[in-house]
Amino acid sequence: MTEAAPRSPAAPSAASAPAGRAKLADVAALAGVSVGTASKALSGSGRMRPETRQRVLDAVEALGFRPNQHAQSLHTGRSWTVGLMTTDGIGRFSTPVLLGAEDALGAGKISVLLCDTRGDTIREQHHLRNLMDRRVDGIIVTGRRTDPRPPLQGVDGIPIVYALSPSTDPSDTSVASDDRGGAHLAVEHLIATGRTRIAHVTGPEHHAAARDRARHAVDLLERSSLQLATGRVHFGEWSEAWGRRAADAVLRTAPDTDAVFCGNDQIARGVADALRERGVDVPGRIAVVGYDNWDTMALACRPPLTTIDMSLGEIGRIAALKLLEAIDEGPVAGVHTVPCRLVVREST
Amino acid sequence: MTEAAPRSPAAPSAASAPAGRAKLADVAALAGVSVGTASKALSGSGRMRPETRQRVLDAVEALGFRPNQHAQSLHTGRSWTVGLMTTDGIGRFSTPVLLGAEDALGAGKISVLLCDTRGDTIREQHHLRNLMDRRVDGIIVTGRRTDPRPPLQGVDGIPIVYALSPSTDPSDTSVASDDRGGAHLAVEHLIATGRTRIAHVTGPEHHAAARDRARHAVDLLERSSLQLATGRVHFGEWSEAWGRRAADAVLRTAPDTDAVFCGNDQIARGVADALRERGVDVPGRIAVVGYDNWDTMALACRPPLTTIDMSLGEIGRIAALKLLEAIDEGPVAGVHTVPCRLVVREST
Repeated sequence: MTEAAPRSPAAPSAASAPAGRAKLADVAALAGVSVGTASKALSGSGRMRPETRQRVLDAVEALGFRPNQHAQSLHTGRSWTVGLMTTDGIGRFSTPVLLGAEDALGAGKISVLLCDTRGDTIREQHHLRNLMDRRVDGIIVTGRRTDPRPPLQGVDGIPIVYALSPSTDPSDTSVASDDRGGAHLAVEHLIATGRTRIAHVTGPEHHAAARDRARHAVDLLERSSLQLATGRVHFGEWSEAWGRRAADAVLRTAPDTDAVFCGNDQIARGVADALRERGVDVPGRIAVVGYDNWDTMALACRPPLTTIDMSLGEIGRIAALKLLEAIDEGPVAGVHTVPCRLVVREST
Repeated sequence: MTEAAPRSPAAPSAASAPAGRAKLADVAALAGVSVGTASKALSGSGRMRPETRQRVLDAVEALGFRPNQHAQSLHTGRSWTVGLMTTDGIGRFSTPVLLGAEDALGAGKISVLLCDTRGDTIREQHHLRNLMDRRVDGIIVTGRRTDPRPPLQGVDGIPIVYALSPSTDPSDTSVASDDRGGAHLAVEHLIATGRTRIAHVTGPEHHAAARDRARHAVDLLERSSLQLATGRVHFGEWSEAWGRRAADAVLRTAPDTDAVFCGNDQIARGVADALRERGVDVPGRIAVVGYDNWDTMALACRPPLTTIDMSLGEIGRIAALKLLEAIDEGPVAGVHTVPCRLVVREST
């Protein structure tokens, strides 16, 4: 900018101070009150005549005065900031959760302090101290996996909500994805479309997401008097390459398989690619369902994937709302699960 | 927790106040000085005997006292916070930039206020007001595209650094990817490995990333007395489906093509898939190079993709360092470009 033009031409009385940088003393002077009275009028505390308060508010308007949040924080004891701590340097899963939380918090007057711990305990402690020093009103902790995580250590009296990765401590507040519901949506959809010989290919058995989805899929099959087409869960990796290898194993073990439910979209895409390359029609002969609704994967797949959406943004939003509740009224212990959505495309 | 155990058993004098919640008055009382003296000792301002300062610091240690950042901010005029504003709700490109910036800033005492504008001007203004109210020391703005963006409006006297999406105002400070260098790395690598009939398939012409990479690729070919194998740039979409269609067009137009340089990894993967399905050996007959080094795409591709890495994390880190410089010494105008890296895999 080459000149400092006044931003509020309608407020000539503000000409002496750039908009947004007027001081409380300027407001008090214009309103004809003491600085103490102006301060009380703004914080809503103290008794005064309504006309006096109105004069102060008029002066605020005329001067484009913006209260200093730090001074306000000293007054109210609240910083109107919330820490958002992610352990996930890569961000595929935690990013939508973060953005959902930011969406719910940022719409109001609450600001979000971002910390990325990259799964490192020392970084976590560093960030935690920093957040405590800044007197955050609460903290949301999120990670990339659905496995429960140990609770944050050394937090005194500040509400915490765990999002996506629930806390191992049942007295904490956690918001998690409903893996049971997600697995059921997938299997129910396959059964509803006439499939009865369903195989399951998923990630490593030591990941809760793989284990839980497999268990719930098998449960639902049994309740429908069905069994896994290949007699077992195919645990492996969260990769396309594993999906391609597993598809061959499924075709060898149970050539009459008519559907494959996959633990994530990458595996599903690998399965669909391998089937196409073996001349097996998808979904004509074998239907394929993924998990995650990761657009890039699901839409680029041939055919585009039917998949389960974990509503990650919704997990973030609900975690934020639970945190606001906890700040105002105290925490509610337990794990709150967020339902998944079935997204039907051409692979089923 | 079922009982409030003291956290510093070595500091019995702290038993009356929970660790981290001791007040400055407690520190002053333990050190035997006035609150004013304790405050000066902590801020490093004011004259006092070294022994006095040491007594205060010992009391801080014994009580586990943590200074209130808000009170400190009123004192120093700095909030030690920086706004990190992203316009990118999806986050594929801005997330690594954000994390790089957070890494550079969070290692010190600076905290990062996250704002996501989702490309919406009203949200941008809302967040900007909030950041100004919180007296941030500076702001980093990042987006998902490399196209220049209009500067933030209504910012008074706070340094701003634009990362990845540079500002259209040349007097602003921007940190951008070196698209010229990236395109040159790709084409040089192809020429160095003996390819001379190189085609270029990329995204929409109205995206700077597509236009710039194409122009620089053509420039370098001409300087090497070469031309595009198909006589033109194939502009389209940033998708695998476009890559597949374009590969067919390239084979039809110039069957002797021996390399395809693609504007992103999704296109490159589509090209590689189509070539494989037409029985064309990659890289035996045609080499393929992508752009972005998006692991999921590049590694799942058959064969794994040689590609250009934009060093997005580095762009974030350098933006953070430029911002710290600007806060301390004033801004340096201009666009700082960050070099790309060539990542060689099996597709070339």
